[in-house]
Amino acid sequence: MASRSIRLAVVPGDGIGPEVVAEGLKVLGALGLKIEQTAYDLGAARWHKTGETLPDSVLEEIRQHDAILLGAVGDPSVPSGVLERGLLLRLRFELDHFVNLRPVRLYPGVETPLADTRPEDIDMLVVREGTEGPYAGAGGVLRKGTPHEVATQESLNTAFGVERVVRYAFEQAARRPRKKLTLVHKNNVLVYAGDLWSRTVDAVAAEYPDIEVDYSHVDAATMFFVSQPERFDVIVTDNLFGDIITDLGAAVAGGIGLAASGNINPTGAAPSMFEPVHGSAPDIAGQSKADPTATILSVALLLDHLGLTEEARKVEQAVADDLIERQGAWAARSTREAGDDIAERVAG
Amino acid sequence: MASRSIRLAVVPGDGIGPEVVAEGLKVLGALGLKIEQTAYDLGAARWHKTGETLPDSVLEEIRQHDAILLGAVGDPSVPSGVLERGLLLRLRFELDHFVNLRPVRLYPGVETPLADTRPEDIDMLVVREGTEGPYAGAGGVLRKGTPHEVATQESLNTAFGVERVVRYAFEQAARRPRKKLTLVHKNNVLVYAGDLWSRTVDAVAAEYPDIEVDYSHVDAATMFFVSQPERFDVIVTDNLFGDIITDLGAAVAGGIGLAASGNINPTGAAPSMFEPVHGSAPDIAGQSKADPTATILSVALLLDHLGLTEEARKVEQAVADDLIERQGAWAARSTREAGDDIAERVAG
Ligand SMILES: CC(C)[C@H](C(=O)O)[C@@H](O)C(=O)O
Ligand SMILES: CC(C)[C@H](C(=O)O)[C@@H](O)C(=O)O
Repeated sequence: MASRSIRLAVVPGDGIGPEVVAEGLKVLGALGLKIEQTAYDLGAARWHKTGETLPDSVLEEIRQHDAILLGAVGDPSVPSGVLERGLLLRLRFELDHFVNLRPVRLYPGVETPLADTRPEDIDMLVVREGTEGPYAGAGGVLRKGTPHEVATQESLNTAFGVERVVRYAFEQAARRPRKKLTLVHKNNVLVYAGDLWSRTVDAVAAEYPDIEVDYSHVDAATMFFVSQPERFDVIVTDNLFGDIITDLGAAVAGGIGLAASGNINPTGAAPSMFEPVHGSAPDIAGQSKADPTATILSVALLLDHLGLTEEARKVEQAVADDLIERQGAWAARSTREAGDDIAERVAG
Repeated sequence: MASRSIRLAVVPGDGIGPEVVAEGLKVLGALGLKIEQTAYDLGAARWHKTGETLPDSVLEEIRQHDAILLGAVGDPSVPSGVLERGLLLRLRFELDHFVNLRPVRLYPGVETPLADTRPEDIDMLVVREGTEGPYAGAGGVLRKGTPHEVATQESLNTAFGVERVVRYAFEQAARRPRKKLTLVHKNNVLVYAGDLWSRTVDAVAAEYPDIEVDYSHVDAATMFFVSQPERFDVIVTDNLFGDIITDLGAAVAGGIGLAASGNINPTGAAPSMFEPVHGSAPDIAGQSKADPTATILSVALLLDHLGLTEEARKVEQAVADDLIERQGAWAARSTREAGDDIAERVAG
């Protein structure tokens, strides 16, 4: 990997997406790696101009890369769901990103909204399933707009899909010092899907006798996130529950400005995609107010995924040092200045 | 109402259920109302003995009451879902409890896990839909236990079901000083159901020009619950999202020991049911350790529902005063002592 250049597809997207992606690329550049990057103009502007969200030809081009860096997608001028489903989720599904990896970690120096909570209390890795569940897009509507309208949404869960992400989560747990894995679901209500998830975790657990296995209903898990976050080490969960708890995780770990994610296809059959957990935040777009840290930490996940472990640690360390130095005083810097500061640490 | 006695069906249930229900009844008794109560032995013990969760004959008897007080249902010795679906959810569905009312309020004197948060920052009313969505029980499993297993869960949403709960939420918002209503959903992914909910809120909003209407994706809502709870006044949401955010709400408002709920059929065609949000907590059952406050506040909701407004305010005030006096020092009292203290205030 190190000898040839990294082919990187870049999707800046909407709102603050382009601003934070620019800083992610700046930090990546500061590592001195050879990078061939192609930017793809996808998102609200393209949809308004052409009605396209993700043309097949673009998807095929993107496939030819080693990894994807994405900013954020979505704009109030576009009907809800069009870009999310037509672009972001389409990428996740077509490229079979079955692991949506979301570390939830409170860095020293970062203020959490939780009283009496220390960095060592919040250090989780959420492994969110990325290619099925309620995100499959199944559902429909009957008699729309009438008093007899019925709208359905179907959650699709397969043994194949659940097992592969559960295995991935166990592997992650095995590498971490606490060696604990918690399944988060709602198996007392969503009995069919919940039963499949529970049986799968039990079956794989038999191969990992060293790992402590726990279960939490999703409702209770949100309570524990604020009252006892130290309960959790690795969490494995369904696509929708993972969406919800990782936003909450971001909030307790100092805010959405710091939350990174990887949409990973561990088989390597297609490029994995890295993106901040936050959205396009149109209200602050264009003002250089967005915190690029989440994108920069997503770059670290990207490097890790490509086997550039040392470089990944460097970026993470630069962010950690920066967070200690800034001590919550984020507002004082522009997006660009923050990127400069972190890039400088990486280079130095 | 006041002249004749209240016919109350009592379902103590499992774990700490009977302990907290006893205190709820104690406080109710202290009001000097005429009450005819019938206890129903439903829950884990009955299921083990007879395999029954809720026999039709018992359901018919329960129907003949003015209201139901329920403790908690569920035990690790019973397969997950059996009692939840066969008893608790069956009651909610059969009695058409389409409003699941869950106030989220930080009482003065109560410690919240959130730093820098004052009682006036957390004062919401969550109106959770109670009779459809992913709780409808639709779904199934194919090729169970094989590598080709497929498990589905279907969320069913009807114009009829959504409109009636949305109307209820608007009425509540109209009575509150802030007059704000937020729809919480995930309409960028669950597009069919989300669209029905969004259109319904827009349509009803036209009849309530004084009410400020807002929307939040459920993932973002969990963030706001910890970072800006003051954003919310009345929330209207789907059955599953409501389940999740009200547990989180309970956590930020001082813990599950204080969270009350009403499963309400506003038409009066069937009795409404009042229960603490917490579960049966088998780990602390039988030790007189459970906080009965959530049940006592549920009794206040019950009184309110029966039109006994003055009595409801009395119970609420007694709890509020008790919370100020105890100042977070809960652990020092037994369940019984706490009930005694609050009952004494109510009587005095
Ligand atoms: C934008 C939206 C479709 C997306 C999701 O729900 O997965 C986002 O919330 C996320 O968490 O990446
Ligand atoms: C016990 C369970 C079925 C129930 C629910 O999911 O509604 C509980 O969590 C609640 O919130 O009342």
